[in-house]
Amino acid sequence: MTEINLDNLDDFIRGTAILGTGGGGDPYIGSLMLKQELEHCGSIQLIDPEDAPDDMLAVSLACMGAPTVFVEKIPNTKTAIDGMRRSEKEIGRKFNAIIPLEAGGLNATLPLAVAARLGLPVVDGDGMGRAFPEFQMTTFNFSGVRCAPFVMTDDFGNTVLIDTDEAARAEAYGRPVCVKMGGIAQIASYAMTGEEIRRCTVPRTVTLALEIGRTVREARIKGEQNTAEALIDYFETSNPPRFARSLFDGKVEDVVRELSDGWTRGQVTLSNLDGSTMEIPFQNEFSRAILDGRTVTITPDLIMILDRETGEAITTETLRYGQRVRVLGVAAVPIMRTPEALEIIGPRAFGLDEDFSPVESIAWNGE
Amino acid sequence: MTEINLDNLDDFIRGTAILGTGGGGDPYIGSLMLKQELEHCGSIQLIDPEDAPDDMLAVSLACMGAPTVFVEKIPNTKTAIDGMRRSEKEIGRKFNAIIPLEAGGLNATLPLAVAARLGLPVVDGDGMGRAFPEFQMTTFNFSGVRCAPFVMTDDFGNTVLIDTDEAARAEAYGRPVCVKMGGIAQIASYAMTGEEIRRCTVPRTVTLALEIGRTVREARIKGEQNTAEALIDYFETSNPPRFARSLFDGKVEDVVRELSDGWTRGQVTLSNLDGSTMEIPFQNEFSRAILDGRTVTITPDLIMILDRETGEAITTETLRYGQRVRVLGVAAVPIMRTPEALEIIGPRAFGLDEDFSPVESIAWNGE
Repeated sequence: MTEINLDNLDDFIRGTAILGTGGGGDPYIGSLMLKQELEHCGSIQLIDPEDAPDDMLAVSLACMGAPTVFVEKIPNTKTAIDGMRRSEKEIGRKFNAIIPLEAGGLNATLPLAVAARLGLPVVDGDGMGRAFPEFQMTTFNFSGVRCAPFVMTDDFGNTVLIDTDEAARAEAYGRPVCVKMGGIAQIASYAMTGEEIRRCTVPRTVTLALEIGRTVREARIKGEQNTAEALIDYFETSNPPRFARSLFDGKVEDVVRELSDGWTRGQVTLSNLDGSTMEIPFQNEFSRAILDGRTVTITPDLIMILDRETGEAITTETLRYGQRVRVLGVAAVPIMRTPEALEIIGPRAFGLDEDFSPVESIAWNGE
Repeated sequence: MTEINLDNLDDFIRGTAILGTGGGGDPYIGSLMLKQELEHCGSIQLIDPEDAPDDMLAVSLACMGAPTVFVEKIPNTKTAIDGMRRSEKEIGRKFNAIIPLEAGGLNATLPLAVAARLGLPVVDGDGMGRAFPEFQMTTFNFSGVRCAPFVMTDDFGNTVLIDTDEAARAEAYGRPVCVKMGGIAQIASYAMTGEEIRRCTVPRTVTLALEIGRTVREARIKGEQNTAEALIDYFETSNPPRFARSLFDGKVEDVVRELSDGWTRGQVTLSNLDGSTMEIPFQNEFSRAILDGRTVTITPDLIMILDRETGEAITTETLRYGQRVRVLGVAAVPIMRTPEALEIIGPRAFGLDEDFSPVESIAWNGE
């Protein structure tokens, strides 16, 4: 049985930041929250989604808001638990497990902190396999899990409960409330039975984060190869193997970033000594990597920007002029590339005027 | 026992439009809704708030949104009833009466249409004694009635339930949801016991609307005096008498109007042949009347703009260049002028840089 404990916490946090694909907020905050809880409870038990029993009822917990806000308005487990309790009251049953909504960033950590506090197990999986900016962009949604009751809580004990069958409407109604809550809200939603957990989850993404974090740390200690290459090796030799490619090696030339409608939006421009340029627009997360005018990776495939030396993730709100970076493109798992999935998390769902092409057929590093 | 029926419906509607003090939306829509219901049920029974029995539990129903939107996106009783049922589920008790939130505009009519549909009595009173643009601007709020559960419903069966002790927060969280619902939402809130109804209501405002409407109609038929003067007479001889004054007699020179954050905001400028100018800024409702640079009536006192010939109300969204109008200033009732009330519905609550002065000490018609 895999578990998260104080020994592997740092690897896990490093991995969630990388799976955040630019979004999900500063992992340091999540790391402190989780550390504090683990010092009390020792470890958190993970359950493989395939092993979820029929009588399991899991709640999906997450922070809604702009990662830029999380830096100074820190989420807390009490507010998350308030939302969970309100959802239980609505459903008339107690939750006996917690399932992360996202595999990346703070939203990969917060559910574990709550689970640690309550002594509940965590499903080793999530609804995104990375991070996405909008609530409906999840396998739970396009696999048919009902999102309601969608409960939002603020830090003052106030609750907003949205009852709708459409996750996109919960997003539309919830986002401006989140802005009014100060740019961040705790949400409890997608109550899932064991059957739904087995069928609708991107599996084993908690352990994936753990292994990504470990791979980067070990490569850094050995110093034999650069961390980005070690990560590519890891993905390509994992079971099943996942396509991964280095897309760019250069520095940050420019960042445009604004907070609008409850998201961090903008674009980063990279350049290298060969005169190539890469542009990466983002809405909380990186949505497209364009090398000298040509798309080389596009959502839902994963775009990661890593610090060239340490291999640590650089998130959209910490990007700044002059950073030396490596950019990686990684294939999304099959459940995220079905036609139903692409309608919700494909390029057009982000307002991009382009169809999805898998990274393995368009990735190109300029060489 | 006073009742609203097909015979006095037109008077009632005319009166609610005038009590709307510029806001509350096109009364024609409310009139059609109520007429349809009255054709089925015959009449609606009114209960004086002083006679509300202890076992009464009334729900306050209203439309939230910009009156400009109501013109093309028409509210309906089914959506209002959805919200009422959701509130009953939350409270665990059935409502046996309905109480209007506002005395003016569509929000004075809609609760009656629902009451007619459900065969419930209506409390002859409301929480504003006119219309106000924001949800917390009510005697219910500053007299201590809890606003939660604050239920919002759209026309597609979706519900947003806001659970908070602060009405201003319900307004803050609810307003952007209302925008996302298409600029209009039905709200069910301020569940009130008989004791609260007796203590926290602006009394007899349904019959007030009825009498205002009748006064204008009769003056028009008699043709002895102009309708505005008849209305002033009515207020000054009512029991207890209310101060009322003609503030301006002229034409609409300019209207600036925009839809922002879910309200209709702007300003109307009037002029007359004597070279005087009156400016009246509004946020759904008229908030201040300024005659040649001097405030002559200010919220919560009532500012009414009437068609010079017919005496019908002109609402903020139907104001247009060239209209011949009379402007009236009328004193608010005592419950709306206490220090607690002025904090919530006084000038500073509207962002105006001025303290409240009663219309009887500042009204001045330039003569």
